[in-house]
Amino acid sequence: MGNETLRANGERLWDRLMEMAAIGATPAGGCNRQALTDDDKRGRKLFESWCIAARCSIEFDEMGNIFARRSGIDDSLPPVLVGSHLDTQPTGGKFDGVYGVLAGLEVIESLNDLNIDTHHPVEVVVWTNEEGARFSPAMTGSGVFAGVFDLEYGRSRAAKDGVTIGEELDRLGYAGSRPCTYGAIRAAFEAHIEQGPVLEAEGRTIGVVTGVQGIRWYDIELYGDAVHAGPTPMESRRDPVRAFYAICERLYELVSKYAPSSRVTFGDIRFEPGSRNTVPEKIIIALDLRHPDESILAEIDQRMRKIVSEEAENANVAGQVRDEWSSEAVEFDAECVAAIADSADNLGYKSMRIVSGAGHDSVYVSRIAPTSMIFVPCEGGISHNEQEAAKQEDLSAGCDVLLNAVARMAGTQDVTTAA
Amino acid sequence: MGNETLRANGERLWDRLMEMAAIGATPAGGCNRQALTDDDKRGRKLFESWCIAARCSIEFDEMGNIFARRSGIDDSLPPVLVGSHLDTQPTGGKFDGVYGVLAGLEVIESLNDLNIDTHHPVEVVVWTNEEGARFSPAMTGSGVFAGVFDLEYGRSRAAKDGVTIGEELDRLGYAGSRPCTYGAIRAAFEAHIEQGPVLEAEGRTIGVVTGVQGIRWYDIELYGDAVHAGPTPMESRRDPVRAFYAICERLYELVSKYAPSSRVTFGDIRFEPGSRNTVPEKIIIALDLRHPDESILAEIDQRMRKIVSEEAENANVAGQVRDEWSSEAVEFDAECVAAIADSADNLGYKSMRIVSGAGHDSVYVSRIAPTSMIFVPCEGGISHNEQEAAKQEDLSAGCDVLLNAVARMAGTQDVTTAA
Repeated sequence: MGNETLRANGERLWDRLMEMAAIGATPAGGCNRQALTDDDKRGRKLFESWCIAARCSIEFDEMGNIFARRSGIDDSLPPVLVGSHLDTQPTGGKFDGVYGVLAGLEVIESLNDLNIDTHHPVEVVVWTNEEGARFSPAMTGSGVFAGVFDLEYGRSRAAKDGVTIGEELDRLGYAGSRPCTYGAIRAAFEAHIEQGPVLEAEGRTIGVVTGVQGIRWYDIELYGDAVHAGPTPMESRRDPVRAFYAICERLYELVSKYAPSSRVTFGDIRFEPGSRNTVPEKIIIALDLRHPDESILAEIDQRMRKIVSEEAENANVAGQVRDEWSSEAVEFDAECVAAIADSADNLGYKSMRIVSGAGHDSVYVSRIAPTSMIFVPCEGGISHNEQEAAKQEDLSAGCDVLLNAVARMAGTQDVTTAA
Repeated sequence: MGNETLRANGERLWDRLMEMAAIGATPAGGCNRQALTDDDKRGRKLFESWCIAARCSIEFDEMGNIFARRSGIDDSLPPVLVGSHLDTQPTGGKFDGVYGVLAGLEVIESLNDLNIDTHHPVEVVVWTNEEGARFSPAMTGSGVFAGVFDLEYGRSRAAKDGVTIGEELDRLGYAGSRPCTYGAIRAAFEAHIEQGPVLEAEGRTIGVVTGVQGIRWYDIELYGDAVHAGPTPMESRRDPVRAFYAICERLYELVSKYAPSSRVTFGDIRFEPGSRNTVPEKIIIALDLRHPDESILAEIDQRMRKIVSEEAENANVAGQVRDEWSSEAVEFDAECVAAIADSADNLGYKSMRIVSGAGHDSVYVSRIAPTSMIFVPCEGGISHNEQEAAKQEDLSAGCDVLLNAVARMAGTQDVTTAA
């Protein structure tokens, strides 16, 4: 097969997105459907009802990940997975995650409508607790599935009120009998809104996602002396703000040398004691560094440490860098990437290669399966926000690309246009 | 009179400082004796018992300010006031304020011991709520006394739990009948630990305080866009951190042009939403600018506003400067300053002229009376801290200077050395 130009039913996809968004809808137009709440269960049940109507068989694994399967011509072949997540942030939008799940379902329904059988089975997956808003860490379901976390760890993750994922899975009836592990997988695809402004700014409909940025989180701590703002001469202060501003300036400059794919973000900061008329004794800066290439990220890491050390010394304060968390850069599977890029071209959609700046279930899935993602534009790059918005035509185009990429990787027989 | 070299009883002063420090003592070696608490009352009662033993008459005014009076030869002459405050910060030290009160008492006791009568009466004053820790604003008692605030305002100041100064004065029996206002005052002196490192660094025992810095408090607010740290390219961000670091750098540079008396302090900052992987939407910076000369402070103010405006524009964010509070620069009375400087010289103590960087009751008192202050070194310049420390010999020297300055301004007769 090649040059497929199958079209999905974008209107049905849109209607289902809106129907799903009514569950846990917030007054400001977003969704609050956090993982393993009663509303999350209602959303899952709605999804399952659509899958059953689409003649899928449904299984849950031990982590509550849902697999809705459309059989293949040879049902013993490894499946093509398509999916994402249905849980949202507390003040989340209608599209983040949900789009990838319902686009997967739409692929199956379109294959049904078009009377297309695939050699490999196709499974739509709903991953449990992608957001990490209720239970940390994020991407728990796909993480256990991919062997990044073990089942015991996944089930024991607790919310602020102490309830664990395992307890909620048991309560909601989502602790399935299927082992949360993988066999052979033919390919895995995830469609998602970009959550960034690039596609919109570049006027492209499809982002062919070639990988995910490496992310490193640090706390930079700077220690000076808490002295009174009045009596203490400037030259006798050990003021960590002097190191802080110099570090900021030099890190922006450093990262600009690795443009355009590098990122530096100072998202939070705390001064202690945090009193207007006292020089801070301690400053803690939350630093986020990203780059798609691990070796470059390692180079930025080393230079960052040198800058912190130099500027702490220049300001006569103590400085240290504490590693908080990191996520290695991911390069997606070339065949899957090509399937997406070719599909977009064949369908006549303007596309570009893009690296994901945010984490997704596909980061973990890519460890155990040939994987890629499809991005579609989201308005103003705004996500994790009740104002999150995407155009029906873009969501539809992304679903068309997904359909053709899945069809290519699953292998089709007897393409017959339906009535 | 001239060239007085009277000596106070430094040991008695030290013992009383330690006895007072036992009231509201904290495990870490400091004091928690906040204004108009039961412990503050206990401290006041202890002070009053010493004053009574020293044959003083005691009055409270409507704001609970205590006046312990030693009669003058002509008791109708305006009094010389000496004093400070007994209230402390929640984690305060043993000396801030207390030293000025007990040094005043020691002046009276030394005059008694030395059988010296003064033409003018001498009154030791305890000002209510200097610290402002329990009730804002600070220096409430001296402020009402000097007519900066009216009595109704002073009584209505409320603590976090809603209780007001007026209610606490009534409860503790400190709403006195004496009007909280001034008649003629011959002179006012306040001895205080420096709360800064200058005397220690310069190796001087006595600071002859010539005035108090002007203080201006601002909130600088910078507004950008809260976007995701990953997907958002650096060049499409409106990141207020870029304006912040540039503003810091330029304000340190600006203030250095007005060295050595100028001060800039960034004591607190808040990022909103304050999430590690989100560019801050809003930054609020607490800025404290000081200079002893109001016209120079006004110049620094204007240049600061220009810098904020320029750097906000450079970073493509919105910026504004909000005035939060200010206190005009104060120049103390030349005759009082000379009385202190001469006394230090006559006693052979190494002294230097110094401008107070912190606010004191004397700032308000100086509006209605010839005023000056005496500073003594405090260890490492550390104050508002349970570790606050001062040497007995320095406290004693400051008290000697206070004694001679008071004696000069009150006018003495019949100096007879006591047994």
